[in-house]
Amino acid sequence: MDVKAEDFFFGGLKPGNTTNKLGSSVNLVNVDKIAGLNTLGISLARIDFAPFGLNPPHTHPRATEILTVIEGELYVGFVTSNLKGGGNKLFTKLLKKGDVFVFPQGLIHFQFNKGHTNTVAIAGLSSQNPGAITIANAVFGSKPPISDDVLAKAFQVDKKTVDWLQAQFWMDNNN
Amino acid sequence: MDVKAEDFFFGGLKPGNTTNKLGSSVNLVNVDKIAGLNTLGISLARIDFAPFGLNPPHTHPRATEILTVIEGELYVGFVTSNLKGGGNKLFTKLLKKGDVFVFPQGLIHFQFNKGHTNTVAIAGLSSQNPGAITIANAVFGSKPPISDDVLAKAFQVDKKTVDWLQAQFWMDNNN
Amino acid sequence: MDVKAEDFFFGGLKPGNTTNKLGSSVNLVNVDKIAGLNTLGISLARIDFAPFGLNPPHTHPRATEILTVIEGELYVGFVTSNLKGGGNKLFTKLLKKGDVFVFPQGLIHFQFNKGHTNTVAIAGLSSQNPGAITIANAVFGSKPPISDDVLAKAFQVDKKTVDWLQAQFWMDNNN
Amino acid sequence: MDVKAEDFFFGGLKPGNTTNKLGSSVNLVNVDKIAGLNTLGISLARIDFAPFGLNPPHTHPRATEILTVIEGELYVGFVTSNLKGGGNKLFTKLLKKGDVFVFPQGLIHFQFNKGHTNTVAIAGLSSQNPGAITIANAVFGSKPPISDDVLAKAFQVDKKTVDWLQAQFWMDNNN
Amino acid sequence: MDVKAEDFFFGGLKPGNTTNKLGSSVNLVNVDKIAGLNTLGISLARIDFAPFGLNPPHTHPRATEILTVIEGELYVGFVTSNLKGGGNKLFTKLLKKGDVFVFPQGLIHFQFNKGHTNTVAIAGLSSQNPGAITIANAVFGSKPPISDDVLAKAFQVDKKTVDWLQAQFWMDNNN
Amino acid sequence: MDVKAEDFFFGGLKPGNTTNKLGSSVNLVNVDKIAGLNTLGISLARIDFAPFGLNPPHTHPRATEILTVIEGELYVGFVTSNLKGGGNKLFTKLLKKGDVFVFPQGLIHFQFNKGHTNTVAIAGLSSQNPGAITIANAVFGSKPPISDDVLAKAFQVDKKTVDWLQAQFWMDNNN
Repeated sequence: MDVKAEDFFFGGLKPGNTTNKLGSSVNLVNVDKIAGLNTLGISLARIDFAPFGLNPPHTHPRATEILTVIEGELYVGFVTSNLKGGGNKLFTKLLKKGDVFVFPQGLIHFQFNKGHTNTVAIAGLSSQNPGAITIANAVFGSKPPISDDVLAKAFQVDKKTVDWLQAQFWMDNNN
Repeated sequence: MDVKAEDFFFGGLKPGNTTNKLGSSVNLVNVDKIAGLNTLGISLARIDFAPFGLNPPHTHPRATEILTVIEGELYVGFVTSNLKGGGNKLFTKLLKKGDVFVFPQGLIHFQFNKGHTNTVAIAGLSSQNPGAITIANAVFGSKPPISDDVLAKAFQVDKKTVDWLQAQFWMDNNN
Repeated sequence: MDVKAEDFFFGGLKPGNTTNKLGSSVNLVNVDKIAGLNTLGISLARIDFAPFGLNPPHTHPRATEILTVIEGELYVGFVTSNLKGGGNKLFTKLLKKGDVFVFPQGLIHFQFNKGHTNTVAIAGLSSQNPGAITIANAVFGSKPPISDDVLAKAFQVDKKTVDWLQAQFWMDNNN
Repeated sequence: MDVKAEDFFFGGLKPGNTTNKLGSSVNLVNVDKIAGLNTLGISLARIDFAPFGLNPPHTHPRATEILTVIEGELYVGFVTSNLKGGGNKLFTKLLKKGDVFVFPQGLIHFQFNKGHTNTVAIAGLSSQNPGAITIANAVFGSKPPISDDVLAKAFQVDKKTVDWLQAQFWMDNNN
Repeated sequence: MDVKAEDFFFGGLKPGNTTNKLGSSVNLVNVDKIAGLNTLGISLARIDFAPFGLNPPHTHPRATEILTVIEGELYVGFVTSNLKGGGNKLFTKLLKKGDVFVFPQGLIHFQFNKGHTNTVAIAGLSSQNPGAITIANAVFGSKPPISDDVLAKAFQVDKKTVDWLQAQFWMDNNN
Repeated sequence: MDVKAEDFFFGGLKPGNTTNKLGSSVNLVNVDKIAGLNTLGISLARIDFAPFGLNPPHTHPRATEILTVIEGELYVGFVTSNLKGGGNKLFTKLLKKGDVFVFPQGLIHFQFNKGHTNTVAIAGLSSQNPGAITIANAVFGSKPPISDDVLAKAFQVDKKTVDWLQAQFWMDNNN
């Protein structure tokens, strides 16, 4: 195998296109984009937010994320796993430029630009292939759809509401 | 430290009480219940289902689950993480007594008893502290609640619907 | 690679045939049987015991085992590794239906049905390829046999006894 | 233990002071600064460069680094470990804003701002406690100093040169 | 914590006393002897053999061993775990001074000096706390003893033989 | 795959040739030499020193080393990573025959025979592919060379000195 500098390089973590329903865009540089990352346990992402842009509740099944804001402000949060005795705690923080926040492995988290200007964040993730699961998309937008018996019971709504949700277009802001 | 047989023992993985809204009950034996599991990377659960009982969509942030049905039948499924190009695939299977199924680490999965008799399953999990995140509870039932700006945009519903969902009682079937 | 539900499924963890010398049968579902288990660090087994059936002293070189009894009773035990100052401690427990026990990675352990009815147990193991080493078989039944000089000295018996043991049929109850 | 949002937060990854001999400054956010990173296998750094600023040859003994340039340009490189048959290859790249580069675990690497404007980079590291070893400092600036017999032979210079090097001030640009 | 050179040092991996029944002696330098080994995943042993000395069949539950002979000759072997379809293969080799052999994690192995002079070996083990289980001692010499019902059935001998074996003195050659 | 004893064997960890500039020779038995070591996380080396022979400052990017002296004496040391507040500590020890020392993962270390007789050491390393980076070679002998702008600034010498150093022959004592 003839290794070369290109195997450790990716040229183009550019501002993402945020003119979409969510007003956000995630550009992940993982082992699919840099072959040299294989087995090394890390990747990096740039996340762009238009004003009121949202990176909706999601998880990374194989990674912890550490994020810093390099432009604008960002309201972030994660929810703990089920606690003993029941319940899930929400932890939130309004990050200003230069602040850093950690989203522990597998926990549901979100990032929301409450401000009137663009926000840019850079994140490190503890896997060369962290994966991303956008909760609404995975639950209501899977192909084929999850049985509405299951979802109606799980979300305590009637099947008509489930069917309506499943009929929506669920965009993925991960590029 | 004076180690003894009791440190590796848990007496009481009994049939769970399924007379609740979901019609299911999860009894997990993790390091909180068997101290000797510390660092050993495994735990075990018994899951009981009344007829039409549901173990609703959830994830384990730190574990893969392997499950076998020891009584009755069970309809199971998991959703992949976001695929390149967009979308999430649903994989399902109707398990009969003696069948085995795997839910890979961190993926959203559910188990549903479609039948008229009770179902019992035993599962192994690849962590002494796998954690469980019931999706609906973490999203709509966290304390404090996630901002309805965030949830309305993420789930493409109006804030009134979000508020109504957040006002529900979200039970946790994990004991 | 076209992944499908079948890659995470095994159909047939049936009652094992226990009409053999040991009166027991182990059915392990590992990565050889479910390809999707690859790298996920877990597997599952069903172990059947006729009355007085024995799963003889053995180790798993790459896994801890957590076991629960789903039918009958089971007398279980493991032996610690050599302690400082010499000696090996035996920890045992009589498990009733619903009890759970842990056998830490690599330690010699056994399971014995002292009762008059069948016993069934389900176990989780912390590797997709845990391996099993039946001590008597590996020591006295290897092909080619271990030198009787070695075994006579190690087991403090004469070579004739070793030769007699090596001439026996050493069945493997792992399917 | 009463976990709170502050345990996952660090406020102040500000522009570093680069008015020093090297013209660079590294601000690492590791487990010493965010307690919630413990065991999670990741940390994050901001690196500032004045014009002609240098982050001199160094290694991270416990982490791979993935870096992106968010302002200016950066000339980066790493040297392979000793190759079979002898020799060490140098891989370099001139990174522009938005480019990404990987420095595999434990390899000697450097970052140099060849330009006339400031450069800022953000890096993810695959450990909550990656460590940093500035080569010149560790070799010539340790306390107590390494024997000049050792260094003269290793670096093929006379002892006077070693002594002169050891008498210099070796600044650490890691804050 | 004030770390010092002594935390990484052990003085005294001396020739072991081999005037015992087995004619061998194992001196393991693990984390109990060098505190600085904690979490570092390695340890080292010196093994001495009188003529016809035996390091009897044993396993390391948490480590692979790599051994080299530095004086004399050594006949070594390990037995595979149970193979599909039944059986366990024995791999052996007569090592001369300077030869190297690997005993994979958890497998039963032995080392025997067939020659008329002393043999010395040095081994590396892939854990700071590898553990050692001398098979005969753990099976026939545990405290309390394993039930003779279990051992008679497992080893296909009568209970009298088991009782006789259990009455022997089982020395541990691990210091 | 037909596994055999040869896959776990290497014949020839012979005294290395130390008639070279450094007066030392490292013979590493890693996965390139014993295929069976794959994934097992360990390797072994023999290091020979002529009188005044030096194994110059180097690191192993993926392994901790534990070393014992089997002939002669050896002066050893390692330097810590950059400490908080600046500085790197040197830890040294004069090892006599039978002494053991640990060089933690990724740290710069050296071994020097200050005596008038040959010294031989055996080392275990916590990876099947530990790698070795001879500092002087990687810094001053890479192909292509590191820019003399970088090295002059990093080592506080003029470019002429750097160029002179880069023109030397940098031998690798790793075989």
